[in-house]
Amino acid sequence: MSAGGQNNYKLDLRAIKFTLYEHLNVQQVFEHERFSHLSREECDAILDQCVRYATEVTGPLNSSADRVGCRLENGQTFTPPGFKEAWKTLFELGFMAFPIAQDAGGFGGPMTIQSVLQEIRSGANTAFSMYSGLTHGASDVIASFGTEKQKTRYLSAMIEGRFSGTMCLSEPHAGSDVGASRTKATRLDGNLFKITGTKCWISAGDHDMCENVVHLVLARIEGAPSGTKGLSLFIVPKVWVNDDGSLGEPNDVITGAIEHKLGIRASATAVLNFGENDGCRGYLLGGEENVGIRQMFRLMNGARIAVGVQGIGVASTAYLNALSYAQERQQGSAAKNFKDPNAPRVKIIEHSDVRRMLLEMKSKVEGMRTLALKLSLHYDLAEALAGKDDAKAKYHLGQVDLLTPIVKAYCSDQAFRITELAIQTYGGAGYVEDHPVEQYCRDAKIFSIYEGTNHIQALDLVSRKLTSHGGENFKNFLQEIKTFVADHSSQPGLGDEVRALGEATEALERGAATLMDFFMSSKIDQVTLVANLFLETMAEVTIAHLLLDAAVIAKSKRDTDGDDPDEVSPEDFAFYAGKVSAAKFFVNFVMPGVHSKVGAIGAGDRSAIDIPDGGF
Amino acid sequence: MSAGGQNNYKLDLRAIKFTLYEHLNVQQVFEHERFSHLSREECDAILDQCVRYATEVTGPLNSSADRVGCRLENGQTFTPPGFKEAWKTLFELGFMAFPIAQDAGGFGGPMTIQSVLQEIRSGANTAFSMYSGLTHGASDVIASFGTEKQKTRYLSAMIEGRFSGTMCLSEPHAGSDVGASRTKATRLDGNLFKITGTKCWISAGDHDMCENVVHLVLARIEGAPSGTKGLSLFIVPKVWVNDDGSLGEPNDVITGAIEHKLGIRASATAVLNFGENDGCRGYLLGGEENVGIRQMFRLMNGARIAVGVQGIGVASTAYLNALSYAQERQQGSAAKNFKDPNAPRVKIIEHSDVRRMLLEMKSKVEGMRTLALKLSLHYDLAEALAGKDDAKAKYHLGQVDLLTPIVKAYCSDQAFRITELAIQTYGGAGYVEDHPVEQYCRDAKIFSIYEGTNHIQALDLVSRKLTSHGGENFKNFLQEIKTFVADHSSQPGLGDEVRALGEATEALERGAATLMDFFMSSKIDQVTLVANLFLETMAEVTIAHLLLDAAVIAKSKRDTDGDDPDEVSPEDFAFYAGKVSAAKFFVNFVMPGVHSKVGAIGAGDRSAIDIPDGGF
Repeated sequence: MSAGGQNNYKLDLRAIKFTLYEHLNVQQVFEHERFSHLSREECDAILDQCVRYATEVTGPLNSSADRVGCRLENGQTFTPPGFKEAWKTLFELGFMAFPIAQDAGGFGGPMTIQSVLQEIRSGANTAFSMYSGLTHGASDVIASFGTEKQKTRYLSAMIEGRFSGTMCLSEPHAGSDVGASRTKATRLDGNLFKITGTKCWISAGDHDMCENVVHLVLARIEGAPSGTKGLSLFIVPKVWVNDDGSLGEPNDVITGAIEHKLGIRASATAVLNFGENDGCRGYLLGGEENVGIRQMFRLMNGARIAVGVQGIGVASTAYLNALSYAQERQQGSAAKNFKDPNAPRVKIIEHSDVRRMLLEMKSKVEGMRTLALKLSLHYDLAEALAGKDDAKAKYHLGQVDLLTPIVKAYCSDQAFRITELAIQTYGGAGYVEDHPVEQYCRDAKIFSIYEGTNHIQALDLVSRKLTSHGGENFKNFLQEIKTFVADHSSQPGLGDEVRALGEATEALERGAATLMDFFMSSKIDQVTLVANLFLETMAEVTIAHLLLDAAVIAKSKRDTDGDDPDEVSPEDFAFYAGKVSAAKFFVNFVMPGVHSKVGAIGAGDRSAIDIPDGGF
Repeated sequence: MSAGGQNNYKLDLRAIKFTLYEHLNVQQVFEHERFSHLSREECDAILDQCVRYATEVTGPLNSSADRVGCRLENGQTFTPPGFKEAWKTLFELGFMAFPIAQDAGGFGGPMTIQSVLQEIRSGANTAFSMYSGLTHGASDVIASFGTEKQKTRYLSAMIEGRFSGTMCLSEPHAGSDVGASRTKATRLDGNLFKITGTKCWISAGDHDMCENVVHLVLARIEGAPSGTKGLSLFIVPKVWVNDDGSLGEPNDVITGAIEHKLGIRASATAVLNFGENDGCRGYLLGGEENVGIRQMFRLMNGARIAVGVQGIGVASTAYLNALSYAQERQQGSAAKNFKDPNAPRVKIIEHSDVRRMLLEMKSKVEGMRTLALKLSLHYDLAEALAGKDDAKAKYHLGQVDLLTPIVKAYCSDQAFRITELAIQTYGGAGYVEDHPVEQYCRDAKIFSIYEGTNHIQALDLVSRKLTSHGGENFKNFLQEIKTFVADHSSQPGLGDEVRALGEATEALERGAATLMDFFMSSKIDQVTLVANLFLETMAEVTIAHLLLDAAVIAKSKRDTDGDDPDEVSPEDFAFYAGKVSAAKFFVNFVMPGVHSKVGAIGAGDRSAIDIPDGGF
């Protein structure tokens, strides 16, 4: 089935299912009407199918595709061997229909399960997953905002994999500063516009896996206001689509170049020239002008969460590969025998520094996954409760808003750090292409940059998300942790860690109060200076809470049932013990940094702002 | 002169000379007899020549060589275009003779200047610098321990660049665990031995730039003790060298493979098979058995410092490239105008988050350079005072010993982090091959692994260096900082930071005391668990001290002379202000982590040790 080599993708389905069902109780969503057409059993079957797809189809292509990369020849981009077949299989198995609403022709699956499916596909082959990820995002935007005609013309073809999708925001001079976009739209007739401009950094911007590429292009209609408020969103297919759905002539969308990148080399990142020969046409999405940013943000919010999930996917397989290497590689003797040259050699997993690296990776991977799935559960519950209990739905949606920048930024930054630790666990073997971790490291670096750099995420958090709805979302977030701390601060074996979480949460509140002071005294440059530090602080408190929450549950299962060996298998006993260890490790080795960060935020040092440019 | 493309190497000679002459007063070494044949002017001329060599010869080859890599064909390794010529020029200009003692035919230059030369060459082209770095190390070992005959036969050819050198320690099953080496030596006649075994990860192990490669091979003479104590060091040339110095027949050293690596791709990392056809001969170095580890450690100690210096070189050019990009790239408007879409666009250096990244890079690069040069100055003073004031010489040598693992590990870890920040400063542009930072990131990752992983460095620090000579070296180290704190805690504009350094130093002492408690109570696994954390702690205290020391000097120059515009140029005024900002930033944003780390060390959490293997 595969044109590639050996599969290097590793996942821990036991850990994923613990988080889904034993910890977050995701099966609760099936009790709501919105998801009542589904069951845990069906979702588990889909997960199993995804695991097979990832380990048998895309996983074995990951390394070979990285070496070959994409190729632009005579204006057409070619993907590496095996991608076409993998694309076809992806759609045949119905994965792309899973998250799409039922009334739009999809399966209507919950985001919690979809996030796991994304994690698995991204972890197995990040570059390949870009094409379907963008297609999903673009089709979701068309489903949400398109006219009936637009939906008919594009949506089913995208769900079937005949058309793929992109989002075209960046321009050579306008990356983070989207509002400076210069791409122009001139009305031809009704919703039909002429499009002119150059877009760059377009993921999945051109390829050979299907018939057509549907670009969603941000452009400014002549006479529209400057900045983001004057941007509209256009559907611009690579090949024109006739009224009967058949393909017409090319639409003057020229692939000017594809980038040569550090990683995700099999993902075509294109420079696209629209209307170079004055012949590019596009349809105004939904027929509504100057709402392009809002429309695009539906995709963008989903994409930001998806980037965090990509990070989790790559970090998880990096960790599990390093774990597997540590279980096999023999080197050195036990620390206690360090003076005896004849002491027996051991597997490196016996060295405490290796265990430290492994447990740091494990605790971060599992903590970040829990965070992403908790966000996803909030989303599912908001969907399920909409129109039934709007107050609760609003609560859940507020948590989605609040946690989105954290998932994007923290999981992407840490994914890179985890791949670094994975390389270090391998030693020299991690630095060579014989093992997969060097590619994971290269692939992961983009996550902190695209879909809004991590500083953009931090700004979103501190300047918008903390204060929206009068700060209610943040208050609700804090209250949940405080309740947990109150309930569990005397938990045997975890009480110290729970109380430490309480102190870290107070530090987080102090950090937030300092930011508000900066805002009040118009020290905006001081806010932006420490925004990333604040985001990290909040992420680490959040993850500590979730890991401890998981540990409390794991402990109860282990301790309650542990006396009777028939009730908890030795494997489960070790698994639950691992959950407790992960929480303790994170709280004792990672979370203490929260206090340094809040201290740094509060110290108010302005050296980076005050240094003269000539002082660098 | 160059076969490559554009030079991307950037350096800040003003900053380097500040550290050498204004801060560390390195010119003091020329007053000692040992270095009295040299002057600052001569050294500056050599530095200038090195800058020209780096920016005109090896810098322009860095990117092209990375893309081509090395190639093994019919048992011979070929380096990328331009390397042969660059190698020839390197020796013609006399750089390789500079650090070699005068009585061994060298120039007898001080290590302080040599470290700067190494930084510049490594920063311009890390892969290329590997070949000469190993050659220098190997020739220094032969100069130190070789018999007169061995010196005659190999040394001058190595100083002239006709022969290169390597160090062959690792074997497939013996990396960090050198004592498990299986390579065998069987006496043929006198110091002549037959050598059999496989060595791997051999940097500069094979290439086409000169006539011969002189391998220093660790092997066990038949019947020698097990472990490191039974290892001897052999001179094993690739091509046999006749008594008259002419080349004889090949010496049965077969290059089995070269590695395909994440970075330093133009540095050949070879698997070498010695005596596959039973025809490999080598000479016992110095004619002394079972002292190979001690002999090798002369090279190893130098190599460890050199790896730290490599890190500084790559980090420095990554920082300066990011700085240059930030000064040119226009994006977004000033933070205070965030609500006005028509506000003028600014260079990204005006954004405080970009300034934060730049100042973090600057403070770390300059702090690490000061650390490496301070270590080098200790070394020079130890050399200068040997036989004249042995107590002082011992003091200085003790500081070299103590600081070596810190320079190796901290500078290598942080080099990678700095290249990460450089990529982030560029945004998407940093992720593509059009800019040099993605290569810097790939190249830098090896530094934490080779010449003893950073955990090996941490073990060396906590289990040997802290306690050697009854802990005297560490006490002297602490005393110097305490004296500085006492002298400057009321320094206007820096007093808060100096007092914070005092507190961090106390935390460091507490951390060291905790480690001693672990040792006393035989909790060796607990020591190894937190050894890396302790090394980081000590490194950050050290660097904070050095940056503050520099800031005090810079401040005095700026403040004293600042009133008279003729005395301090605007450039110098900004430069000195930058030194103060760098110190304040590091103390306020990086050094606070020291307290979290010492807290984590003290908390004594054993979760990483106690977790059952099945819990990962």
